[in-house]
Amino acid sequence: MAERLVVIGGDAAGMSAASQARDRRGPDDLRIVVFEKGSHVSYSACGIPYLVGGEVAEVESLISRRPEVFRDELAVDVRLRSEVVEIDLDRRAVAVRGDRGGAPSWEPFDQLVIATGAVPDRPHLPGADAEGVYGVQTLDDGIALLGALEEKPRRAVVVGGGYIGLEMAEALVRRGLEVSLVDAAEQPMGTLDPDMGALIAGALRDLGVEVHLGERIECFEESGGRVRAARTENRTLPADLIVLGLGTRPNSALAEAAGVPVGETSGIRTNRRMRTPVEGVWAAGDCVETFHRVSRRPVAIALGTHANKQGRVTGINIGGGYAAFPGVVGTAVSKICEYEVARTGLTTAEAVEAGFEPVGEVVESTTRAGYYPGARKMKIKMIADRGTGRLLGAQIVGQEGAAKRIDALAVALWHEMTVEEMTGLDLSYAPPFAPVWDPVLIAARKAAERVDRLDRGA
Amino acid sequence: MAERLVVIGGDAAGMSAASQARDRRGPDDLRIVVFEKGSHVSYSACGIPYLVGGEVAEVESLISRRPEVFRDELAVDVRLRSEVVEIDLDRRAVAVRGDRGGAPSWEPFDQLVIATGAVPDRPHLPGADAEGVYGVQTLDDGIALLGALEEKPRRAVVVGGGYIGLEMAEALVRRGLEVSLVDAAEQPMGTLDPDMGALIAGALRDLGVEVHLGERIECFEESGGRVRAARTENRTLPADLIVLGLGTRPNSALAEAAGVPVGETSGIRTNRRMRTPVEGVWAAGDCVETFHRVSRRPVAIALGTHANKQGRVTGINIGGGYAAFPGVVGTAVSKICEYEVARTGLTTAEAVEAGFEPVGEVVESTTRAGYYPGARKMKIKMIADRGTGRLLGAQIVGQEGAAKRIDALAVALWHEMTVEEMTGLDLSYAPPFAPVWDPVLIAARKAAERVDRLDRGA
Repeated sequence: MAERLVVIGGDAAGMSAASQARDRRGPDDLRIVVFEKGSHVSYSACGIPYLVGGEVAEVESLISRRPEVFRDELAVDVRLRSEVVEIDLDRRAVAVRGDRGGAPSWEPFDQLVIATGAVPDRPHLPGADAEGVYGVQTLDDGIALLGALEEKPRRAVVVGGGYIGLEMAEALVRRGLEVSLVDAAEQPMGTLDPDMGALIAGALRDLGVEVHLGERIECFEESGGRVRAARTENRTLPADLIVLGLGTRPNSALAEAAGVPVGETSGIRTNRRMRTPVEGVWAAGDCVETFHRVSRRPVAIALGTHANKQGRVTGINIGGGYAAFPGVVGTAVSKICEYEVARTGLTTAEAVEAGFEPVGEVVESTTRAGYYPGARKMKIKMIADRGTGRLLGAQIVGQEGAAKRIDALAVALWHEMTVEEMTGLDLSYAPPFAPVWDPVLIAARKAAERVDRLDRGA
Repeated sequence: MAERLVVIGGDAAGMSAASQARDRRGPDDLRIVVFEKGSHVSYSACGIPYLVGGEVAEVESLISRRPEVFRDELAVDVRLRSEVVEIDLDRRAVAVRGDRGGAPSWEPFDQLVIATGAVPDRPHLPGADAEGVYGVQTLDDGIALLGALEEKPRRAVVVGGGYIGLEMAEALVRRGLEVSLVDAAEQPMGTLDPDMGALIAGALRDLGVEVHLGERIECFEESGGRVRAARTENRTLPADLIVLGLGTRPNSALAEAAGVPVGETSGIRTNRRMRTPVEGVWAAGDCVETFHRVSRRPVAIALGTHANKQGRVTGINIGGGYAAFPGVVGTAVSKICEYEVARTGLTTAEAVEAGFEPVGEVVESTTRAGYYPGARKMKIKMIADRGTGRLLGAQIVGQEGAAKRIDALAVALWHEMTVEEMTGLDLSYAPPFAPVWDPVLIAARKAAERVDRLDRGA
């Protein structure tokens, strides 16, 4: 008799797992059912800011495959608006509630993939549930926010200066709103060192965003159930629209309630093959914790690229193949106005916390040979371990053509290169693509010289 | 008494060596004299096509430091138009001929850096010395060619379809000439696999270049000492201007005549610290041979980036420090019309020659998420060793934003990763920079699946 695979959550991780499992096992051998709480599967959540900003015109563009395609081409039974509310590991079944109400129905499984994603951090503040306060976690959130724009709001407050917050601030400026951004930290982009994050604050102000750093939201003022303003320690910011971009945490409550172990990050624990400690129960995507190859500690990082890879690994293993997810080095990239921002590895603060003694060097260079038309400025910060000279992390803030350089750094980090070793790397050079010393190599040289000077006590 | 360092050749390698040596040893400890045959030092030869094409308006832009700067700020005695015509290792002196004629003068050295660069391959064909036939090796060549453009030539023939030939063809089209390109090979860009090179032939034709592949030049027709046409086996191509872009070989004759060993590539042999087998005699840049980390064979690759690194290593060692050049993986990049072209590692043919059993996979993808404005097409070919799954090489042909991805591949190659391992790499993702599976990861997946299928005999 065919095994039954139940997948909870129909976005990147869940659908990748379903596809890969199907790729290896036919419908007579493995039945696959996906329960998705929302109205869409297999979409690009990372594309929501561009949908809101108008660069992407159609919601459809963000959907890579529709449920019918999974059903018709892959024999994957996708059930939309179906929320799994309980997992029973003894009965090996999940309780599913549809959108028509009524008691949940129990659906049996032989193999289970938990791909429940992340939940946005919502401040426990008065007014946070008022109408006009939006998250940007799911495509449904994005669609709701698009709908709100049709009411011609004038003023928006974005709470949180991370990637999502900044991308949303830019999107709302593009839509003609007056936008304020509030962050409790002294610099936006807390995933960078403060000196690099400061460059972004300037870019945001240039765009016309009113930036309030080092301020906490105290409450949202509402009237008639609708939000009217955000209040910080220092001021009241009138707002027709609030967008919360405060980061996320793993959506692991369902798993934890069932007895599937979660780790210190609150992400579900899995081995390298993405299996939880429970036989036949797998987890992938934003709901899990993974291994950081530099800090050597568990981390929970919500990113579509990890979710896709982990889903693929899960599906290959369920399908009878062998695949492993090797952990992450903390790579991320974003575009804010004309600025490209990227990071990999550990920030200075993270490196200290992980027990290293970081030394950082910032280099200013250009994306092309200085004399070649279109050469743009970029800054690159390289962080090395003082004792060993090993690369610990790197950050880039620059204009067009800057950010993708982070990939070469991410691969160097993966292999635990020292900055001295990196000075010899055979990176590509031609005037339309780089100065004769690529900024990555210049930064490696400067960092190596710094480590060397410290070694010699100079 | 101060030691005397003589440097032969004042471009990237020689001047980097001089600067780094000076950085570590003051003028009282080390006197430095540079003999340069031409009229310029420290310039970007790679920028010549853009000077000829007009993207770079001033010759000066290509010069990174003028002789006076070396003299005044670094106490490096630069002698222009001074050709070293002999090295006497027993007397430890070089014979130098100035441009005013007369007998060469002997200049003693304690340490010698040979940085004589490369010489262009010139076909031994009737008419190759006629007026109107240009190389593009030195800045003086570039200036001469610029001068020729002032005579309003109408038709040009470019001989050779490598990087330089293609860049020059594009430059001359930009200047309004009718341009033909002739190459004996069936595809341009012989440093790529033929299927990837074919994409470039199309781009050239789109640009309006008349492309004649698989044809050899038989002679250049001249009248009154001036070139009038290029004749191939099949046709006569009228030309006011011929540009030779046939590649180069190490300029090692002077060293070899002196008894400094040269290798099978005709490049000067050095150890990792860039010292030749002769005590106190160093060599760096296009005149040396280096170690290819994938084929594990000596290669001679003329590239400014290697020359700069090798010069730096040489200067550090002469200065009393320790530095080593770790070899190359064959990375190169170029821009031809709207196309970006990059490679690293071995081509299929080179891999076979090096004793591997290469399998290649070509993937078509985009530079950004498909739905994000400005997403451009790119093709990436990944070549893996059938037996071990190890990455052997990669090639990229695509539009804006494609080529710099070669750097991440070059670092992966450096560390002898398998394509399967590469599928887990933590490369950056956001819609303005990549599809959720970066083309590099897609290509790694496809190559890994191919190796796996072959393994299973499927």
